[in-house]
This record gives sequence, structure tokens and C-alpha cells, in this order.
Amino acid sequence: MSLAKQILQGDRLSLARLLTHIENEDPQGKKSLSELFSHTGGAHVLGITGAPGTGKSTLVNQVALSLRQLAENKADETVAIVAVDPSSPFSGGAILGDRIRMRDLAGDPGIFIRSMASRGALGGLARTTHSVSQALDAAGFAWILIETVGAGQAEVDIASTADTTIVIDAPGFGDDIQANKAGILEIADVLVVNKADLPGAENARRTLELALHIASPSTRMDSDLTEVVWTPPVLTTVATKGKGIEPLLKAIQDHRVYLNESGEGKQRLRARVKHHLEVLLRDQLLEGFLQDITIPSFEKHVEAVLDRTYSPYDAVEKLLQNQDKS
Amino acid sequence: MSLAKQILQGDRLSLARLLTHIENEDPQGKKSLSELFSHTGGAHVLGITGAPGTGKSTLVNQVALSLRQLAENKADETVAIVAVDPSSPFSGGAILGDRIRMRDLAGDPGIFIRSMASRGALGGLARTTHSVSQALDAAGFAWILIETVGAGQAEVDIASTADTTIVIDAPGFGDDIQANKAGILEIADVLVVNKADLPGAENARRTLELALHIASPSTRMDSDLTEVVWTPPVLTTVATKGKGIEPLLKAIQDHRVYLNESGEGKQRLRARVKHHLEVLLRDQLLEGFLQDITIPSFEKHVEAVLDRTYSPYDAVEKLLQNQDKS
Repeated sequence: MSLAKQILQGDRLSLARLLTHIENEDPQGKKSLSELFSHTGGAHVLGITGAPGTGKSTLVNQVALSLRQLAENKADETVAIVAVDPSSPFSGGAILGDRIRMRDLAGDPGIFIRSMASRGALGGLARTTHSVSQALDAAGFAWILIETVGAGQAEVDIASTADTTIVIDAPGFGDDIQANKAGILEIADVLVVNKADLPGAENARRTLELALHIASPSTRMDSDLTEVVWTPPVLTTVATKGKGIEPLLKAIQDHRVYLNESGEGKQRLRARVKHHLEVLLRDQLLEGFLQDITIPSFEKHVEAVLDRTYSPYDAVEKLLQNQDKS
Repeated sequence: MSLAKQILQGDRLSLARLLTHIENEDPQGKKSLSELFSHTGGAHVLGITGAPGTGKSTLVNQVALSLRQLAENKADETVAIVAVDPSSPFSGGAILGDRIRMRDLAGDPGIFIRSMASRGALGGLARTTHSVSQALDAAGFAWILIETVGAGQAEVDIASTADTTIVIDAPGFGDDIQANKAGILEIADVLVVNKADLPGAENARRTLELALHIASPSTRMDSDLTEVVWTPPVLTTVATKGKGIEPLLKAIQDHRVYLNESGEGKQRLRARVKHHLEVLLRDQLLEGFLQDITIPSFEKHVEAVLDRTYSPYDAVEKLLQNQDKS
């Protein structure tokens, strides 16, 4: 029986094996994903991001626990957690993260946890995260929680693979340039001030509300119209005490309804598919091209650039024009 | 006179114009960079990264000020600062950042400041940052300081364009999973605990030392050998008071000497050129390919994937096999 079939039958070990194939970007991964692809589309993908120190992991754990506790049908409403650690090219850290989670979530077969570390490849992480999400989707998970660290390009990319993006803030993170916040707001569907029992929480909440208003004034204007418009809510939580989790789940459900009713869900999906096709094409084309030229020829151009004989742009032009096999 | 020639003559307005071309990724940028390329290689590029709230911008300002104050030849030892804000697809934030800097650094013609915001393109930021760095290098800046936010993939990429990468930490960031730290250490040449006057600074420093030891045990073993080996130093600073800046500059100079003497500088440069060529090739190939197929044909495959008729992998295979112009 193929790996894909085993996964469709609910075999978790096979799923774990596929995720490893995907992370290594080996051909078996693509083959299985192709086979599984027609079974995707059932999951709701949550992207959860925020700076280190905002209590992201704890909040993700709480959301997972609550989704499970509130599930009417425990067998169907399963949760997969993907913890992405783009800053760790090695997996030592990811394993530690897993252990911390295991303590809280172990024992529930409806929860699946996977940590991923970047291989350092340009765009590699965003690509594999998208594939991992598809594999979990096909495997039948109702909820996929993708947790990412920081506020960088990777987060913006990963947010684009999520249906609902939750951005987490915490009191005391206001002393950096507000610019970061204005930026991250553009990808947020739901905003959370975690650690709301610390001093400065109300201030952090108000700052986000203000930044939100500055970042998308059009939202305010649109709200007078009859068109369905989503204004990201700003919620407060104390994840360590499980406070504020239910309103957060409600906001997630509201956003899910909005995506369906407004048609934005379909629009996002279309953009995502287009983007994914372009990324795959780009890689395949490069691979095909590099197979056609000899290594010494490529190295020759590397040397010429190093010697400043000509620029990288000239080198690429030469490579493309001649496609020389010297 | 060409834009490139004007830049070589020291015209800052032309330089600013080129940087805009590069950010917009328009052809004029590539053309000028090609022309300027033979003039690159003189600058030492510092990559400075850290989570929001670590006081990165203040530290970067202090380093820039000190480099200028200690310069024996003020006309030659010029400093360019590139503030990369990957989380802000719009530039509102970047402009605010500029204003804050201007207050401290304005009036010194030996300092040039540029903020960059991501356009949200996959890998786009890393690509343009590298080109911006080359333009500044050709323009004659002795030091290029690239400041990036967060601890994501973008940072790992941008670190790969720097000669010396400085990772900034601060007390109070230890409550997140240590994994992040273990990861970011892999790219650090110099580590800094900023805000060292806050409680927990010594703890933060020791944590970094420990993480460093775990992340690269080989460094410890190698130090018995005669081979030149770089062990990232862990320094403490209070950027707001200008404390600890001189030891930091010394560490940067030491690392620069190490890069030259060990040959690692050359190795890194070679890897960077190779990587840059691959990125450029990938884009050019995709561009050429998309020009060859009609938009309806591409859209047809997007629809098929959306309908789950076949997978993205199948779509790419079909696109490449047929190169159909239907």
C-alpha cells in the first residue's frame, strides 16, 4: 500500500514519515502529496505569529486544548500543530520545544505535533510549511495550527498559507519602533495581547487599536457600506491561566464565516495556488537548467564574478544566452 | 553621464535614486549595478539582527557614531546604514524609523541612511538587500550596517550577505523557548547582550555562552589545534548610554582580521556569489518561461488545482512538458 493510502487510513507513523520526506524535499514527498492532493481542502489553517517572549507557544497549546475540549465530535475535530522555528537550521531547539508541548498535550490522540526547523534555503521554509499543511489537511485534521517565531519575511510568507492569521503581542514590547507593529498588522486577521495580567497590557491593546486604525483607515470607511468587511479584533489573553481563550476561539470562528460569506476565502486560496505554482516552477526550471550546463561552466562564471571581470547580472545573461556546455 | 558614473563621483542623490530602482526591481537598477560591479569589494558589511525590543536601532546608531568618531580619515571611513523592516509591506514604519535616526546622525555627511520595507515577495527582500549593499559598496562606503528585525528566515538570508553578523539579545527575552537562541547562534559572529543595566543581564549573557557551547561544541575542540578558529564573543552593552561600544568595535575588527587570515572571508564570498547567481537565474528562467506561455494557459492550471483536478506538482509537470501555448 502506498504511503499516501496509509495516511488516508489514519496511520500517524506514515504521516510522520511523509513530513520528513517533505522537510528533506525528496521526490517521495512530492509523489505522495500529488496522490493526497484531492483529499485536501477540509482543514482550517491558523497561522499564529509573534515576537519571542510574547508567550506564543503557551497560547497555541491553550487554543489546541480548547478546540479539543469544545469539540462535539472528538474523532473529527482533530488538531495538528506545526511549530516552525526558522532561526534554527539544526533541530536541537525544535526537539526541546516538542518536549515542552508533550507535557501538556500528550495522551490525546486527536492532537498531532510537529516541529520544523529551517534548512536555511531561500524560501525553503515557506515552501515546505505549505506542503506540510497540505499533508496534514489530507490526513484529515480539522484544524492546523502553524506557529512561527518573530516578525520577519518568513512570517509574512507563512501567513499567506494560513486561512486565519493571529498576531500575538505582549506588554513591554512597545519600546521598539512602532513600525514593526504597523507592518505586522497588515497580515493580522485577529490580534491578541497575551500576558494581559502584566502592567502595560491596556496600553499595548490601545497601541494596537491605534496602529490598526492607521494601517487600514479604509476599513473604517468601508464599515459604513453594506459590503461585508472584516475588522481585526484586538483581544486580551493570559495563556498561562487559560484566560481569554474562548473569545479568541469565537473570533477565529467569526473570521472563518467571514472568509466563506465574503468570498475572500476563495480569493486567498486562488492567490495561494498561483504563488505555489510559481515557486515550484522557479525551482524546477533552475534544476533543469543546472542539469543542462556542466559544473565547470557554472564555476567559471562564479570565478569571473569573484574576480569582478563581470557582474552577476552579466554572468546570468551569459549563462542564459549561450547555455554553453563548454 | 550615466547614473553609475554620477554615483562613483559621490553624488548622493543619484545613489538614492539607484536604491529606489533596486527596491522596485526595475531594469535601470540592474543596468547600473552591472556598471558599478567592478567597483565593489571595498566595504565591510555588518549584519545586525535581534528581536524587537532588544534596542537594536539604538545600538546601530551608536556603532555608526563611534565608527565615525574613531575614523582617522573622516572622508574615507564613511558609514551607510540600511534598516530593513521585513514586516512592513508599506513604508510608513520605515519613514518613522528614519526620523528617529535623523535626530542622532544628521549633519554628518559621512553617514548615509536608508530604510527598506519588504514588498512581500518571496525572497525579494534578501535579493534587494544584497543589491543595495553592492550599490553602497560601489559608492565607496567603508562600512555598511544592515539592520534587520526579528529572528526569521529573512535574517538568516540577510546574514549570508554580511561579512560580520552581530546578534543582539537583551535581558527578559529568556522566557521563550531557548530553541530560538540556539538557532540564531549559528549565524552569529559576535553576540551582544544590550540593556545590560537591566536585571537579568548577567543571566542572559551566561545563557548565550551556554547555548553557544551547545550549538558549536566543535569550536571548543578545535581551539586546541593551531588552526585559526573564530569563537563568537559574548559582549554586553548599554546602547542608550554608549556603554560597551568600543569593545564591540574591537570584536568587529578582530573578526575582520580573522576572515582575511583564515581564508573564511573568501569562502563566504564564493558561497554568496554562487547563491546570488542561482537566485538571479531562478527568477530569469521563470520570467522567460511565463513570457512563453499565455496567461489563459497558466490560469487554466490554476483553476485545475483549485478544483483539485490535479495537484500543483502535476500542474508544474504539465506546464514544463507541454510548454503549451493553447
